[in-house]
Amino acid sequence: MTELSVVGKRIPRVDAKSKVSGRAVYFGDTVLPRMVYGKILRSPYPHARITKIDTSEAEKLPGVRATLTYKDVPRVITYIGHLHPPDTPLDRYILDNVVRYVGDEVAAVAADSPETAAEAVERIHVEYERLPTVFDPEEAMEPGAPKLHDEGEFIFDMDRNIASHIKLAFGDVEKGFKESAVVVGPEKFKVSAAHTNPIELYGCIAQWDPLENRVTFWAPSQMIFRFRTVLAHQLGLPENKVRVISPYVGGAFGSRCHVYPFHAIAAFLSKKTGGRPVKITLSREETYVGGTSNRHPGTLTLKMGAAKDGLFKAFDARIVFSAGGYAYVSSGPIGFCCSIITSLYRFGAYNVEGYNVYTNTPPSGAFRGFGGPQAHFALEQIVDMVAEELKLDPIELRKKNHVRVGDVIHWSGVEVRTCGLDECLDKGAEAVGWKRRYDSAYRGTGVKRRGIGVAMMEHVSGTKYIPGEAEITSAIIKLDESGKITLLSPAHELGQGSRTVATQIVAEELEVDPEDVVIPELDTDYLPYGLGSFGSRYTYVDGTLIRAAAADTKRQVLEWAAKKFDTTVANLEYKKGKVTVKGAPENTATLAEIVKFAQWYNPDDVGAIIGKATGPPLYNAPPFGVQFAEVEVDVETGVVKVLKLVAAHDVGKAINPTTAEGQLEGGLTQGLGYALTEGVIVDPETGKVLNSDLMDYKIFTALDMPETRVFLIEPIDPTGPFGVKGIGEPALVPTAPAIANAIYNAIGVRVKELPLLPEKILKALEEKQ
Amino acid sequence: MTELSVVGKRIPRVDAKSKVSGRAVYFGDTVLPRMVYGKILRSPYPHARITKIDTSEAEKLPGVRATLTYKDVPRVITYIGHLHPPDTPLDRYILDNVVRYVGDEVAAVAADSPETAAEAVERIHVEYERLPTVFDPEEAMEPGAPKLHDEGEFIFDMDRNIASHIKLAFGDVEKGFKESAVVVGPEKFKVSAAHTNPIELYGCIAQWDPLENRVTFWAPSQMIFRFRTVLAHQLGLPENKVRVISPYVGGAFGSRCHVYPFHAIAAFLSKKTGGRPVKITLSREETYVGGTSNRHPGTLTLKMGAAKDGLFKAFDARIVFSAGGYAYVSSGPIGFCCSIITSLYRFGAYNVEGYNVYTNTPPSGAFRGFGGPQAHFALEQIVDMVAEELKLDPIELRKKNHVRVGDVIHWSGVEVRTCGLDECLDKGAEAVGWKRRYDSAYRGTGVKRRGIGVAMMEHVSGTKYIPGEAEITSAIIKLDESGKITLLSPAHELGQGSRTVATQIVAEELEVDPEDVVIPELDTDYLPYGLGSFGSRYTYVDGTLIRAAAADTKRQVLEWAAKKFDTTVANLEYKKGKVTVKGAPENTATLAEIVKFAQWYNPDDVGAIIGKATGPPLYNAPPFGVQFAEVEVDVETGVVKVLKLVAAHDVGKAINPTTAEGQLEGGLTQGLGYALTEGVIVDPETGKVLNSDLMDYKIFTALDMPETRVFLIEPIDPTGPFGVKGIGEPALVPTAPAIANAIYNAIGVRVKELPLLPEKILKALEEKQ
Repeated sequence: MTELSVVGKRIPRVDAKSKVSGRAVYFGDTVLPRMVYGKILRSPYPHARITKIDTSEAEKLPGVRATLTYKDVPRVITYIGHLHPPDTPLDRYILDNVVRYVGDEVAAVAADSPETAAEAVERIHVEYERLPTVFDPEEAMEPGAPKLHDEGEFIFDMDRNIASHIKLAFGDVEKGFKESAVVVGPEKFKVSAAHTNPIELYGCIAQWDPLENRVTFWAPSQMIFRFRTVLAHQLGLPENKVRVISPYVGGAFGSRCHVYPFHAIAAFLSKKTGGRPVKITLSREETYVGGTSNRHPGTLTLKMGAAKDGLFKAFDARIVFSAGGYAYVSSGPIGFCCSIITSLYRFGAYNVEGYNVYTNTPPSGAFRGFGGPQAHFALEQIVDMVAEELKLDPIELRKKNHVRVGDVIHWSGVEVRTCGLDECLDKGAEAVGWKRRYDSAYRGTGVKRRGIGVAMMEHVSGTKYIPGEAEITSAIIKLDESGKITLLSPAHELGQGSRTVATQIVAEELEVDPEDVVIPELDTDYLPYGLGSFGSRYTYVDGTLIRAAAADTKRQVLEWAAKKFDTTVANLEYKKGKVTVKGAPENTATLAEIVKFAQWYNPDDVGAIIGKATGPPLYNAPPFGVQFAEVEVDVETGVVKVLKLVAAHDVGKAINPTTAEGQLEGGLTQGLGYALTEGVIVDPETGKVLNSDLMDYKIFTALDMPETRVFLIEPIDPTGPFGVKGIGEPALVPTAPAIANAIYNAIGVRVKELPLLPEKILKALEEKQ
Repeated sequence: MTELSVVGKRIPRVDAKSKVSGRAVYFGDTVLPRMVYGKILRSPYPHARITKIDTSEAEKLPGVRATLTYKDVPRVITYIGHLHPPDTPLDRYILDNVVRYVGDEVAAVAADSPETAAEAVERIHVEYERLPTVFDPEEAMEPGAPKLHDEGEFIFDMDRNIASHIKLAFGDVEKGFKESAVVVGPEKFKVSAAHTNPIELYGCIAQWDPLENRVTFWAPSQMIFRFRTVLAHQLGLPENKVRVISPYVGGAFGSRCHVYPFHAIAAFLSKKTGGRPVKITLSREETYVGGTSNRHPGTLTLKMGAAKDGLFKAFDARIVFSAGGYAYVSSGPIGFCCSIITSLYRFGAYNVEGYNVYTNTPPSGAFRGFGGPQAHFALEQIVDMVAEELKLDPIELRKKNHVRVGDVIHWSGVEVRTCGLDECLDKGAEAVGWKRRYDSAYRGTGVKRRGIGVAMMEHVSGTKYIPGEAEITSAIIKLDESGKITLLSPAHELGQGSRTVATQIVAEELEVDPEDVVIPELDTDYLPYGLGSFGSRYTYVDGTLIRAAAADTKRQVLEWAAKKFDTTVANLEYKKGKVTVKGAPENTATLAEIVKFAQWYNPDDVGAIIGKATGPPLYNAPPFGVQFAEVEVDVETGVVKVLKLVAAHDVGKAINPTTAEGQLEGGLTQGLGYALTEGVIVDPETGKVLNSDLMDYKIFTALDMPETRVFLIEPIDPTGPFGVKGIGEPALVPTAPAIANAIYNAIGVRVKELPLLPEKILKALEEKQ
């Protein structure tokens, strides 16, 4: 690999100044002339039929511009997620006469002020016929359970409330278990409905031009083009009659992959007002009660068999997710959870079955990791349990069994080309002081006990070769007469640093200063098509096509320079944004000079320099990661204090080590919350969410953080631009199992249910005694 | 030529609904958060040095956010026009300590309201040292005349106030005159400083982000990319740090080719406010007093010799334009005037010399026709004078001498490939009843006399092969999964219908419904480079590249369809937006199906369909036109009433006959004003503009219009897309000389000075008697 001058450097984030100064424009900052405010009325019941709805009292309120009920919107079954049908169940109308969870959308109002809108929705009179409810996904599959849906498409089994079902099998599992020296399980693990909690609230502005019959959305999004496709479908318009503009996004974490009902509601309200922009901003509470979505909660029942030498002979998993009232990207997380659970290790045989099941709870959806955190929380504990049975060190057992270079991942057909797991294990073990876990003096015997745990993970770099998914993006690069660069890329800046890495890739390839690159904000009207920022794809996938567009730009620069110097491209040298005739340094032209030449010189042969690339990435390199947790458990209170987290992640190549570390550190924060405190709690009597604000739903903040160490392991991947792999999601995936394993090391009890609350620790300790 | 299904059809304008409903967004409709209002203090003197300037009293006014004087802006000599240096004199600072006309920019204020800003500029204390003045360009060239500029670049002769000089010669003129049977002249014609008068006022919003050091302009413009280049130069930024957004434009007529001082002033005011958007809207009065620009006034002294058979043997012209205080696009109109005056006819020899001269009057600049109206006003009268001397019918004389197919235009090297002049002359003559002009009974002998006149014109289709100019544009076409089309084109919709013709070209080429095409608004950040809408170039130049981008799109569609149907492109047929395997109609795919296939089907071979074209047009076909005027002159009052105008224009091919006719009818309105009423009057004592509003400056309105007949002559030009030629400017060019010639036919006197006011008619009648 040639020497890199910008890639791999810790340049400051290109959006840093705007953000720290508060100047960066978010959706919430956007104010449009004649704008009005939308507010949604939500269901107080978990399951009910609307028998009467009357908006007349709301409409009497001065300042109210429009009301909207299920009667006002077309009865189009919409798909909400980002996957193409038939991979996603179509189970939802924009507004319906049946509500399926507390918080489900019932009606909406647009008014001159948010206060008037809030008052007006209270005046909407609704009569409900209550329907039977079910909150637990396992119960929901039982015969006789209340049925949530009786219409829809691509729903696996409506009678059993199963939105999606997946089954993966390899080898002879029965034989595998028979041949195993040790069999652990079935062990049942339970995962919680963690909430994404981006700091920027959810919302959008929609403006429906009644004459052009064209709708513009200002909406924080992770995927403007898929948003456009879904919204066009919902609104009954072709795609080019829907424009999605997405400014800076204040955190997304997967949850901004979904088109939520409020998007179409804002548009239909705008239409009813005759074309005013309608702004809807969900309150924090609304985001919890189903206005947005949570990580899928559910159960994972695993069984694992290993031979005496430690090799995994057989694996069995049954995974049941709660979809909530509707199945956002349903087959996605359940499918990915079932898939990824089979692919970190070389199992002799496996059998995995998954269900995503409707319940009368807020919908589950995409959340950083997309099924991976659930999978690894269970998998990485049962691996430790097997290690204990075999009396093997957990690291040793993992090293024996993990996939390695040359292995092919069954479900995707992807061959592993690089794998940094061993280096991650070794670096992390050293940093955490792994051997101490066997020292009883270290672990202690008093009230406070210490322990160390490890967990690994595997993920994807985008969606190529994922069944039912596609992978595509595009990039355009414009050179101007100043010799400067504008990159048109669907580079959703979610806070993850996408614009910074895109800038570095362009600057590296064209050998210019990163300052020379401008990336305009996201707008479907202008940008070339691409899927967006999700699935740990941006740097790996868009990076590939951005680099290709830069190469295409360079090719054009050389062609124009050849004309300028009346020579051939082969006789030219491109270096540091300049072109020189070989052996004639006096014949050198800057990019500015070449663009001026191209645009002005020869009347019969002029052209703007516009580089373009569109296509798939080369591959889908699996990123890997290992995390170690050191914990202190108070055996009297059950409180777990994480003393240290060590994260060693195989990132291929870090385009910008600082933003890569930032991704990992951010992930650790979410991983800690997932492990110890987070989870939306639905009251089993009323179906109401009990912790719908940041007081009661506890996320880890900067002040709560333990000591962390982050290692970037960089086995340059041949398939990624400059060797990169995906990095967006991995960091939070192994945190919870590493902590659970550390707790076991500290106190000898295993809590298999998230979050690992003190009362669960105490209960487990009690049960043990 | 194959049959056309959309091109040539009178489809409704794509912007019609938005405009007639008042929904179309113009710059004036734009309101931004934290926006403040700029106001400019203008010079009360025609020439003076600022000896003291004090803004402290203005700054004390509550609500004032920033003040700006020449001390606050970088002393950068800027170029204001759209031409590349060295073709344009660099003669102006953003603000200077010398003012050169009444209305010149002195200082500026930004405040919370327009009223506060207006009050604040009044509080700026300025002391001036008066300097000697000169208002007449011929006087300004004399030795000892006051000198306007003592700094600058590319100024031809600062001592003689000559901004630009041009000289064109062909053949032996002296010999030509000697061989002539008839010599007319030197005859001196005088042209007025007509004002563009778009209904939308001038102005912009500028926002200078102090952290990104990036400036965004919302500005009605004819050329966003040239605006960006000029503004980047003025502000000291690279081009990609300047963004120009141009919404709908409410009339431009060339005057929105200039970057005016208010543009940079708004930006520097924004910078001083710490980044607030600053909106400056010029009042109607400000636009007249030099806040914008006028058509170049001046004199044209012509001499023409013809042989007995009528062939033009020799021609001599001396043209002096008044630049005003600064030379906007200086070499442009004087150069074009001198050039086009040589090229409508086959002169045996000619000698043309032109000067653009600084005077202490409001600046002259680009205005529809760009020197052509001045040239033809003089030329087409002297041709009639020669015809009279030769006792030839003016049409006959013109037919003998005008350029024809195969001729090469000397100054551009362009060969005439099609020429509809004869057909225009014949169609027009018949429609106006030409022969009546020789009937004294028709002409009358009473107070009201009637007459009929004719005039021809030639123009360009863009700027290719014009010395010092370049010609380039680009287009990108995106196909979406609905199979619909987004065209990215610098299609400045100035009211002329550019978006409609662009839509028709795309729809024709891709064989889809015009409804399927969306053209987003103008934005330099996203659009591919192109020069804009001026010089009668859009349909001819952008049309060529738009068509090429559509063809590139179609090529990609066919390639993907070949993959879809597992066949070759040669085996496919594209028809009406669908692709069919030849001989297998069951294998047909819509555009939507092909895009879905391309974007989703094969993980290793996906791509967005993005058509692209950049380059020059094929050529620069000269459009021609002929107009006939029938007038009634009141010999007692001198009032000229135009009874009928007939315009027959060679437009190549009308993409949309209705918008083409609209262009011509609009041009006739301006031509009538230029002929009879328009011209900014500068007081020869004070240098003040005496008619600075629409009460005192009289333009023709719909109610003032005579009967008009418009003929589109369509000799399909082989170089334009679908055969088009330029059409934007021609219509106003021959109107004034046709009227002047008709007046002569009616009353036997020739008024050689614009506008043809009653007092001038009476004076000429008096002189005759």
